[in-house]
Amino acid sequence: MTYPKNRLPEHLADSDRAAGFEVSDAFERFSQMNDIFTRAFWDDRVRTDDTDAFFASYRMEAAPRRGDGFTQKDFALRNAAWLISDIVSERSAAEGIREGFQGAIRDDTPVAPDKVELGDPGVEAAEVKAIAKIFGADLVGITDFDARWHYADRPDVRVMEPVANDLPDGLSRVIVMGHAMDADLVETYPSALAGAATGREYSHEAAIVMQVAAYIRNLGYRAVASMNDTALVIPYAIKAGLGEYGRNQMVLTPDFGPRVRFSKIFTDMPLAVDAPRALGLNDYCDACDVCAVACPVKALPFGPPDFGEEVTKGSPSTQRGVRKWSSDAEACFGYWAKLKSDCAICMRVCPFTRPRPRTGWLDRAWYRLATGAFGDRGRAWARRIAARRARARVKPREWWAALRKE
Amino acid sequence: MTYPKNRLPEHLADSDRAAGFEVSDAFERFSQMNDIFTRAFWDDRVRTDDTDAFFASYRMEAAPRRGDGFTQKDFALRNAAWLISDIVSERSAAEGIREGFQGAIRDDTPVAPDKVELGDPGVEAAEVKAIAKIFGADLVGITDFDARWHYADRPDVRVMEPVANDLPDGLSRVIVMGHAMDADLVETYPSALAGAATGREYSHEAAIVMQVAAYIRNLGYRAVASMNDTALVIPYAIKAGLGEYGRNQMVLTPDFGPRVRFSKIFTDMPLAVDAPRALGLNDYCDACDVCAVACPVKALPFGPPDFGEEVTKGSPSTQRGVRKWSSDAEACFGYWAKLKSDCAICMRVCPFTRPRPRTGWLDRAWYRLATGAFGDRGRAWARRIAARRARARVKPREWWAALRKE
Repeated sequence: MTYPKNRLPEHLADSDRAAGFEVSDAFERFSQMNDIFTRAFWDDRVRTDDTDAFFASYRMEAAPRRGDGFTQKDFALRNAAWLISDIVSERSAAEGIREGFQGAIRDDTPVAPDKVELGDPGVEAAEVKAIAKIFGADLVGITDFDARWHYADRPDVRVMEPVANDLPDGLSRVIVMGHAMDADLVETYPSALAGAATGREYSHEAAIVMQVAAYIRNLGYRAVASMNDTALVIPYAIKAGLGEYGRNQMVLTPDFGPRVRFSKIFTDMPLAVDAPRALGLNDYCDACDVCAVACPVKALPFGPPDFGEEVTKGSPSTQRGVRKWSSDAEACFGYWAKLKSDCAICMRVCPFTRPRPRTGWLDRAWYRLATGAFGDRGRAWARRIAARRARARVKPREWWAALRKE
Repeated sequence: MTYPKNRLPEHLADSDRAAGFEVSDAFERFSQMNDIFTRAFWDDRVRTDDTDAFFASYRMEAAPRRGDGFTQKDFALRNAAWLISDIVSERSAAEGIREGFQGAIRDDTPVAPDKVELGDPGVEAAEVKAIAKIFGADLVGITDFDARWHYADRPDVRVMEPVANDLPDGLSRVIVMGHAMDADLVETYPSALAGAATGREYSHEAAIVMQVAAYIRNLGYRAVASMNDTALVIPYAIKAGLGEYGRNQMVLTPDFGPRVRFSKIFTDMPLAVDAPRALGLNDYCDACDVCAVACPVKALPFGPPDFGEEVTKGSPSTQRGVRKWSSDAEACFGYWAKLKSDCAICMRVCPFTRPRPRTGWLDRAWYRLATGAFGDRGRAWARRIAARRARARVKPREWWAALRKE
């Protein structure tokens, strides 16, 4: 289901305006068959010996060993970090579902037979957000269900053929949670070691999203836990007020910059929604191309946002009809495959990726400049400061040496 | 297997002396059949309608609702908090194993075919400890395998009959990890709400112990992940230098007092071991009976440590032949069953349970006094201060009200 342009529900049209979303007539829902990871299993234009070896490297007997950051210990840590996510994602493989990736996480517990009596939706929303933080979420926002961001279909992972990607009706609210990645590991991208930050956070988010969803079901409401499956999380995260879209294809957040992953819960619990926030973060990207310059395969755009036609040369992995920066997904994932690990150099070099939440006065002052408190001249100044403060990659062997001394 | 008194390996006899352990000729290994939770399934002296209802309350359709701290929301949070632990503990039920409780956690990943080249055992130990902290452990220590602490048998949970409790040979090292419980939830004991602190930490420890064990297997060494199963963790935690045994039957740690749970990994990775530490914590208990006074069913001893014969009136749930404080497990668990949730009033009221790790100067000064830096007179002074600073239970409804305002 999607919304014809002139029939988009008013509350979504309003929130599109607030978020600065521009959706053209060319918009169509994204098929998860065209996700670059899914294509690596069925599309010969993407699948190579390298992509096969990339996936195999997540098993230790197939993990390659070559050079600093790609030793057995680096792969050992990365692969162990993924464990909890792996256990969840593999348990419904026989039904064609890779939970949390290609299909929602199944309900481990039923909906309680009694609905708890709820108060004001604003108060209940504050409470659920605080509960999510107790379970370990770093950021939480709530927004309205929006069919446009839901995959048109999902792959049955047994045969890699498209099947229906349906949610039950009535799940009108989406709780979006942000999960900050380990700052020190991120500093070592690109490396298999840095991939431990990714795996650890997928494992965290799997546990957290499942626990929060179980809590809501225990209150008598429905709750479907979701990671990368079912719908695009980026528009939901922006709509929920957690951040803005950056040139590096990630959500830039005030506390962590792009150093954060997202999970979501679809629920019928009546909760107040958050408004998108104008944070001044992506305006900074307009005249910053640090990520695009740093990308070794030049997969990121240098120009202004567009509707996805130009930069990506018609790739089926590009969302059409939404004005935004789009990457060359084939080039990006091709580099991952060569590395045998995920790359996020574009996260590491982003000036908004600070090692820790900005608590020092210098960080706070820079952030105010960078987000436009002193207009374009302040932004230009922030860019010059950022260039001087740019951090070199931490060598994985330095990370291990520091660890031993702790 | 156990060690005849005159054949206890020398390194264990040494470490017994360092830890202040006194083991008598009456010592025999504990049968997990006699664990009070296991007895609640087969022993009519323990099993009652209340104990059945206690276990049933972990399903929302059977969770009772009565009064502050025992509302649907309180049980909802507690039961959701347990989810990750539940998923792990239930997955081998068909083979008679309740993973992490009555049987070790199964290996989710194989041992890597290549052993990583290791350096100095002290350096490797420091590194593994730091890795455990990256995965979320709050405390880590390493000690030698000691067959005395291993259950003589474990129950097959299908039939509740004893079966062999064996580990593979050669797992000579035990990594013990401590997992701090949420300070604010602990302040609400007794309540179903406070049980969320227990469940959340079991879920954390399940994930963490499985990830660290997977990491070690990825290095080419064997690693068996364990929670409450396989062996008593308390003597191992003390031997690993993490704390001392308290009157309230818990390990008192410098950072968290008794507000901590423990997991462990059995491995053949050659790691340097830690020595038990004389911390001055349990000497404080000699003249402190705050926990014993607070216990509503008087399940804790008021006198000096003994060999387990007197206080507990010959209960099979008491470890025999080790000089220590012993509780009346039947009275203790009987109270849990009445509450339909775990009770840890004795953790909440312990003067060493501070809301946060002791970072304020007053907390640090008190800790120095309490642990004997100024002898018995300093300790007496610390007891008077502790009595004045004693915190009342936080009412669950106050906890929820504070949450909504966050």
